[in-house]
Formats: sequence, structure tokens, C-alpha cells
Amino acid sequence: MHALLTQEARGQYTAEYSSKSRRAWTRRLLVASAAGAAAWFCSAAHAEVKKVAYPEVKVTIDNAYKPDAAFDQMHAAFAREHHEVFEVLIEIDTDGHRSGIRPDEAALLDVARVLDAGNVRLGGVLTHAGASYQCDTPAALRSIAEQERSGCVFAAERIRAAGLPCPVVSVGSTPTALSATHLDDVTEVRSGVYVFFDLVMSNVGVCTTDDIALSVLTTVIGHQSTTGSAIVDAGWMAMSCDRGTARQKRDYAYGQVCSVDGTVLPGYLLSAVNQEHGIVSHENMLDGGNGRRFPVGTRLRILPNHACATGAQFLKTLRQLIENPLLLVY
Amino acid sequence: MHALLTQEARGQYTAEYSSKSRRAWTRRLLVASAAGAAAWFCSAAHAEVKKVAYPEVKVTIDNAYKPDAAFDQMHAAFAREHHEVFEVLIEIDTDGHRSGIRPDEAALLDVARVLDAGNVRLGGVLTHAGASYQCDTPAALRSIAEQERSGCVFAAERIRAAGLPCPVVSVGSTPTALSATHLDDVTEVRSGVYVFFDLVMSNVGVCTTDDIALSVLTTVIGHQSTTGSAIVDAGWMAMSCDRGTARQKRDYAYGQVCSVDGTVLPGYLLSAVNQEHGIVSHENMLDGGNGRRFPVGTRLRILPNHACATGAQFLKTLRQLIENPLLLVY
Repeated sequence: MHALLTQEARGQYTAEYSSKSRRAWTRRLLVASAAGAAAWFCSAAHAEVKKVAYPEVKVTIDNAYKPDAAFDQMHAAFAREHHEVFEVLIEIDTDGHRSGIRPDEAALLDVARVLDAGNVRLGGVLTHAGASYQCDTPAALRSIAEQERSGCVFAAERIRAAGLPCPVVSVGSTPTALSATHLDDVTEVRSGVYVFFDLVMSNVGVCTTDDIALSVLTTVIGHQSTTGSAIVDAGWMAMSCDRGTARQKRDYAYGQVCSVDGTVLPGYLLSAVNQEHGIVSHENMLDGGNGRRFPVGTRLRILPNHACATGAQFLKTLRQLIENPLLLVY
Repeated sequence: MHALLTQEARGQYTAEYSSKSRRAWTRRLLVASAAGAAAWFCSAAHAEVKKVAYPEVKVTIDNAYKPDAAFDQMHAAFAREHHEVFEVLIEIDTDGHRSGIRPDEAALLDVARVLDAGNVRLGGVLTHAGASYQCDTPAALRSIAEQERSGCVFAAERIRAAGLPCPVVSVGSTPTALSATHLDDVTEVRSGVYVFFDLVMSNVGVCTTDDIALSVLTTVIGHQSTTGSAIVDAGWMAMSCDRGTARQKRDYAYGQVCSVDGTVLPGYLLSAVNQEHGIVSHENMLDGGNGRRFPVGTRLRILPNHACATGAQFLKTLRQLIENPLLLVY
């Protein structure tokens, strides 16, 4: 659970600090995935909370909460000790993609009633339409965004109709956050990676490669004598192993190569990675190999498939950004 | 380059600390990939060196070193300031896999002569037979190990025959370190990930799954109602996105599921991962879905495809191990 906390926190750093794009809608939100994890989560969270001034900790739940005297006692003691009553959100499954309770499922009201009667505060409902990552047309994106919104709002209305509180209606994924035609009755949009964007999102169609605000600066350190491909000092430790574009309409291998000023060099990809080495080559092996084009010492920028995965490889840099949001990192 | 340093250091942590296997041959060695990077590298390295007591910093080179008055001056000043003369190893390409100078190439002696005449210490030769990762029979492994050894030794002999020093003959990759029939004239074996091992190495055939000394402890936090698959709190932030077994004889998806005591549960894989969530399912969907077998709260261990990539996701834990090698981390 400690790792989960740190990782969620990383996600927030990514979402909230960018020198290029400042359109974050994200509220500061930490989410754990099981009531049983709450004690662990908060014990770790409080240390972090002080550091980055997170105003709130929330817990999502998608199973009937089974009160247990011993657990409830521990839970209440922990909450007292930290002057905290856990706010619990019920996860709603609006697209059959991963987890949650379907908006029309009978269990929804059972869970809401148990929570409302327990030692926690029933905060509302939350959904994540992960299926939106498979979309790549504006019409499909608008449709899944509306499906996410209307499903979550319907779940909230059912809870309220049963006489229970449901103040929060939280929706979000990067594609849907960018594609909603309206957000009526939604109280919170979790906007994912969209202050940075990445190649996956450009394939989905919610940004262009020019919008991508996170890149890895690398240096040409050699060439393969047989192929002429350039060897750079950015491997999977820098980029991550994420191959999120592999099954999309445009496969960028491990990243799109740009000149140091960020101009895309069409056809040049980070075609392969080892731990500390990457291979830069033209997808059609043009220019008679890359050797002549990129001498040793040339600095290049690589746009990532997945900004979350690449950003998480540079935690120290992200921490520096937290401490000084105006810092420019080269 | 700072990232490279940190990442190389991580690799060493992985190689040197294991509570299960203590067969490390690895000498403490940091390797940068270009002479031009040396100043950066060492400036970052010295901070680390103090912390973890690395006794040496080495630099590998696989291109003719072109002395330049300005660079040489900076280089010499830096070396003086840090009471350091860089030891430079020449990278030898023994398998056409990535980079280096071939053992019989004329350029080898040119590079050795330039280095010997420069402000650095010619340390010797180094190779990494990365092609060994594609092997999966004992005969093929023995053959590539001998190819790696004999190629590197031959390069050293050529340098010595030209009247130049070549004290270090460094070979290594995890598969070849485990498969060499003899190591005559080799002075150093870089043993890779083999104090931990992983699923990639079990496919290569140099270990069994029972030898794997690194796993991620995770908890079942829910179930998919439609498929019965279990949802755990280990996604790619915990395991990494490494899919190193994808093209091997046994594809483990994102990891092999074990009970909490480390017993392999045959057929159960971490079949999919999101950032913080993983899906555990039986590859043939046996047992009527996994719901009944793994109730919420069940703790499981996941064996990783690639111990380096998974270990690098837990830098804090590895740091704790450095500070207290006897610490057991659950």
C-alpha cells in the first residue's frame, strides 16, 4: 500500500505541474482501492500529506463493506488518532472495463446503506471509463464520455432517491475528460495525463504530438557499424518499457525522436531499448543510416508513449518540480 | 547522465543484495558509455560513491577518442579536482548485438593507442553478449559464453601484442555468466541479474522459477463480476511494463502468481496491468473464475519477468537494503 500511495502521488505530480500546459482540472485526490487498506494507506499518506499539502484522502470501494467488530475498532481508533473520518466513494463500472458496481445493480444501494451506517462518511460515486483508451474517433470519444457521465450520475441519483447522501460525482480518464460535450451533475473530473499528453493520447485523437509537454533529453553516444543506427543514453530506465502504442493506429516503438528544440523528426523512432541504451533508427532506414545525421554528442528529445510511465522513472525531477513549480528542467 | 548513473547504481544494488542467493561475482563497477560523458558521470557519481562506498568508476568507449585541447583541459582539471584518473575500458562487440568494436577490427588498436597516449588509464576490454538472451538450450548457451570469452580475450591479446597494457578482460551477461565452461584469461565476470533471477532467465534455462529471489507481495482488492478474475493492488507501477517473456517459449504475461509462501500456482498469471491495478486470472480460466479461490484480502506473490525492471520500481526498498543488508523486506 505504501507503494500505491507513492505512485498515486506521482500521478498527481504529473497532473499538476507542467511548464507548457496549465489546464489541470484535477482536484487533489488520493484513492485507495479497498476499505481494508485504509489504515495502511493513511499511515503512509499522512507523511506525504505534510510534504505536499494534500488536503484530502479518499477511499473507493466496490464490494459490500462487511463490518467486523475488530476491524471497525482499529479503524475508529486510527481515525481518532489522525482526526480523520474516511470519506468513501463507491466505484461505478460504466464500461465493463475493469472494476466497480454497475449503475443499475441492486448491490449499489446495499453498499451505500452499509457505508452510511458505518464509521465512515459516504462521499459519493466515482468512475473511470478505461475503455475510452481504445477509441480513436471524435464520435466514439464523445459517446464514451457521455456513457461515463450519465452512468455515474444515474448511480448518484439512485443513492439520493434512497434517502442517502451522494455529494461527489467523480468521472474521468484522459480521453473522456477531453471529449465530454457537457458535464451536467458531475462535481469532479479526474483529467488523467492531459497536462502532459503523450503518444498514446495523440493516437486516441485528443492531442497532437505538438501538444506533448514531457520529453526525455538524450545524447547520441555511438553508432552500430553494421546498421548505421544511432545509440543513445536513454533506454527503458529512462522511457519505461511501456508499449502503449503497439496496438494503436500508429506504433511509435519506444518513442518519437525530435531535435533538441522539440521538432518532430518524421520517421525517426526509438526503435529498441535496453536498460541504459536506446537505438534510434528511421523506420524505413532512410538517409543511409542515421550515423551521418546524428553525430556522437547530438542531443535529441524523445516523446514518450505514456507520460505516466516515463514520468515515474524520474521521481527526483518531479519532486524538484513540486518544490519549485517554476523550475525549468532540461 | 545523472539518470544513467542512478540507474546503473540501481542495477548494482540488485546484483549485490539478496537474502536468498549470495553467489554474486560482480565487482563494483559503474560504466558510462562515452568519454564525453565522464565529467557529468563522475560529478554525479562522487555523491553516490560516498553513499554506497563504490570503490571505482570506469568508462567504456567504442569509438576512436578524438583528443581536443579544450576537452582535455577540462577533463584533466576535473580529474585533478577529484583525485581521479579515469580508467577507460574499450567495448568489444562479440556478438553483433548492440555496440562495440569487433575483436579483429583494425580500429581496436587505433583506439587503444589514442587512449594510452591520453590523460586516461587504458584499463582493458569489456564485452556484453546480449544475444545470449535469445538462447534457450544448454548447448547454445555454452557456445555463446565461449564466443563472448574468446572474442574478448582475443581483443586483449591483440592490444598486448601491440605493446599496450590491457589488465582487465571483462565479460558478462546473466546467461553467459551461468553457462561458461571455463573463464581462462578473463579477469572479471559481470553477472547481471543472477543473484535474483527472473522469469526471462527461467525461459533462457539458467534457473528454475524456484530460484527466483525477488517477488512483489500484493493483495486481492476485488473481483471482476463478469469474468471472476481477481483484481490486485500491483499494476505496472509495481511490476514495470516489461514483457520480456512475450517472445520466449513460455509467455508469463506480467508475472507468475504464487501463494504468499512463494509456491507457484500453475497457470495463474498477472494477465493484465493498469497503473495501480493488476488482473489475476488462470490462463485457461479454470476453477470457475478466480473469485472463489482468492477472496478479497488474500495476499499473493508475483514473480517478475525482469528483476531489473521490477526492482527499479522500488528504489526506496533497495536503498533500505543497502543500509541494512540483513533487513528482510516483506
